[in-house]
Amino acid sequence: MNPRPASVWTRPVDDYRDSIEQLLRPLAARAVESVPVQAALGRQLADDVRSPIDLPVFRNSAMDGYAVRAESVVIAPVTLPLAGVVAAGAPGRTPLPPGAAVKVMTGAPLPPGADCVIPVEDTHADDDTVTVERGRSAGEFVREPGTDVRAGDLLATARTALAPRHIAALAAVGLPTLAVFAAVRAAVITTGDELVAAGTILRPGQIYNSNGTALAAALAANGVTVVSVSHSTDDPARFRALLSAATSAADVVFTSGGVSKGDFEVVKEVLEPLGGQFGSVAMQPGGPQGLTVVGGVPVLSFPGNPVSTMVSFEVFARPILRHLAGLPEVATYELPLRTAVPRSPEGKRQFLRGKLIRPSGEPPWPLRHPIAVEVVSGPGSHLVASMAWAEVLVDIPAEVSALPAGAIVRVWSL
Amino acid sequence: MNPRPASVWTRPVDDYRDSIEQLLRPLAARAVESVPVQAALGRQLADDVRSPIDLPVFRNSAMDGYAVRAESVVIAPVTLPLAGVVAAGAPGRTPLPPGAAVKVMTGAPLPPGADCVIPVEDTHADDDTVTVERGRSAGEFVREPGTDVRAGDLLATARTALAPRHIAALAAVGLPTLAVFAAVRAAVITTGDELVAAGTILRPGQIYNSNGTALAAALAANGVTVVSVSHSTDDPARFRALLSAATSAADVVFTSGGVSKGDFEVVKEVLEPLGGQFGSVAMQPGGPQGLTVVGGVPVLSFPGNPVSTMVSFEVFARPILRHLAGLPEVATYELPLRTAVPRSPEGKRQFLRGKLIRPSGEPPWPLRHPIAVEVVSGPGSHLVASMAWAEVLVDIPAEVSALPAGAIVRVWSL
Repeated sequence: MNPRPASVWTRPVDDYRDSIEQLLRPLAARAVESVPVQAALGRQLADDVRSPIDLPVFRNSAMDGYAVRAESVVIAPVTLPLAGVVAAGAPGRTPLPPGAAVKVMTGAPLPPGADCVIPVEDTHADDDTVTVERGRSAGEFVREPGTDVRAGDLLATARTALAPRHIAALAAVGLPTLAVFAAVRAAVITTGDELVAAGTILRPGQIYNSNGTALAAALAANGVTVVSVSHSTDDPARFRALLSAATSAADVVFTSGGVSKGDFEVVKEVLEPLGGQFGSVAMQPGGPQGLTVVGGVPVLSFPGNPVSTMVSFEVFARPILRHLAGLPEVATYELPLRTAVPRSPEGKRQFLRGKLIRPSGEPPWPLRHPIAVEVVSGPGSHLVASMAWAEVLVDIPAEVSALPAGAIVRVWSL
Repeated sequence: MNPRPASVWTRPVDDYRDSIEQLLRPLAARAVESVPVQAALGRQLADDVRSPIDLPVFRNSAMDGYAVRAESVVIAPVTLPLAGVVAAGAPGRTPLPPGAAVKVMTGAPLPPGADCVIPVEDTHADDDTVTVERGRSAGEFVREPGTDVRAGDLLATARTALAPRHIAALAAVGLPTLAVFAAVRAAVITTGDELVAAGTILRPGQIYNSNGTALAAALAANGVTVVSVSHSTDDPARFRALLSAATSAADVVFTSGGVSKGDFEVVKEVLEPLGGQFGSVAMQPGGPQGLTVVGGVPVLSFPGNPVSTMVSFEVFARPILRHLAGLPEVATYELPLRTAVPRSPEGKRQFLRGKLIRPSGEPPWPLRHPIAVEVVSGPGSHLVASMAWAEVLVDIPAEVSALPAGAIVRVWSL
């Protein structure tokens, strides 16, 4: 037996999360790489991007129709001689003869001299002439150069995570490549002699190892590249070897298990002598936590229970990782509880799992504002199945020991 | 010159979208494949998934502490002989001798005969005995088998798009692989002689081709696999060749350009004889639209202007594609306009681009409910830059010709 000292500190959730965020924030200064625009979806811009060109590039027609001088159609109907046709993509350099019309397609350059376009609907034409039924003023259905974007205009700011709408705009100004940040790289090490791989038959005392798969999925869903997922027994030499590989390949390392008050806490045993801080955060689930910097690489040590691991990730890691990836903040709501929370441990912030209640009925495009939250889990940390059904974490403050139905709680989207 | 007939129909937005959804809905019956759980993030379950095991698998300790019979600790403090230790992962088959205690780690099997666990915090121990400071009742800190999940319990339903929380739960019950639907496969064909690739120097009359890149990004972001992006000149033979390749490789084809009333409308020219319906939808931007089924494959033909293309995608394709991928519905809100919309074309539904206004101030975890919407675009269809800045489409009903500041409008997230 190898007894460990009881935890030397208990810290509030916000305080501990601040420590983690301070450790991870320097990862904002990451390597920059150039990627083709068409491969940049979800990547994070390294610099502000300005338009290299005016858009429209040239004066062009907003309609399929006839380019004329407005003065030629003041009195309508009027029949004008047809002096040609300009397709989209044609150079369009032949001037419009006075008193004539030139057929133009949407997007085609306006012939020099023309100052408005008569939509094809307001005309009828034969081979040589066009009759205009309704006059137009100068400028109508003409797109002037630079009216959408001027060369030099800011199109997207540094740190933007590129959505399809950004890709559309940056492609439209002809940018072939974009400078983006390398993704944050993470390694995951799970620990515990009792854990075995999915698909094997459980022997007595064994359970399936799910934290590696779960953390890898959670990291990938929040803009992080997972460079390795490995599993350590409770043998410190084995954990040390995996830790060394992880810290040399990743910007941040996540461990699960081995942080509690038991006799075989391999993570705490290896990391505490390296300066790791191990103790309790005043929360349920997820109380036992550890934080170490190994060779400059932050190592976040979560407890091994699957729900504790995932709640720890949500509370401590996800907000800062999304920030680093340029992703939108985690959505939060303040909502009434559908049913009472009969008890909550005083002095500990409790994170229950919940489902959002939405208004019934189906307008043609349903409004999705939730109107309440329903707790789908007990307070325990072993209720993995509830994770599958939960859409949100329900945040019960530390000073609360029970809440009635209808009490307003804060919830965060999972 | 090759004059085309004016469009033969004008249809309301909802009506046209219904036609598209009816064409795409059969894609719900797609091929099923088996993927490892750790590769299943974002994939859509083909079947309901039930747990193959009880969870917890065996009766185990919820705490690091001492397994006892509750009757041994009715009067506390009491000192009990120590009869061993059970680590997590140990088989744990040795029964607890009457009146004794066995040290147990969190997750370790409870020795037969033990009925509660005394947390280590409430004890002190030497090598041979443990003194229990506070009694516990039978069942305390004991996790009974199957209290989280019973073998056969439903964990996730068919059509669920797998989020990290689902992966966590399905990994925890030891499922090595999952049956998921193949993604919907799309091909994109852009058209237009005036379009040139990014990174080339524009000659007079030319513009950059952005719709292929933009549509590919929008498709990928909504759970669709893009099998090809190609560009056709206005030569019908070229378009026909690309169409044939696209319809043989994809479940749905998107085209841009060539659907309007000009003289060189290659998409309409090729597809109308194949039974394509080309006409106007009463909306701005994005009015000219076409819909064809070629060899059983739906072909959606959007107008070529970049903003029209993207608005068409948002309005007609994105909701059904997300539904097919099992992704959450597009978020919609009803919000007051920050400033007036001075005019909107009567009889046409207008989709302006807007930004959400959120409350100022920063609570510790900011509430993200928007409180208003600000229009960032004019009504034109050529304002690509506004797409980059817009977070939402602002939906101005067809019967409205102007709206004052403060009017409630429906907006959809981009």
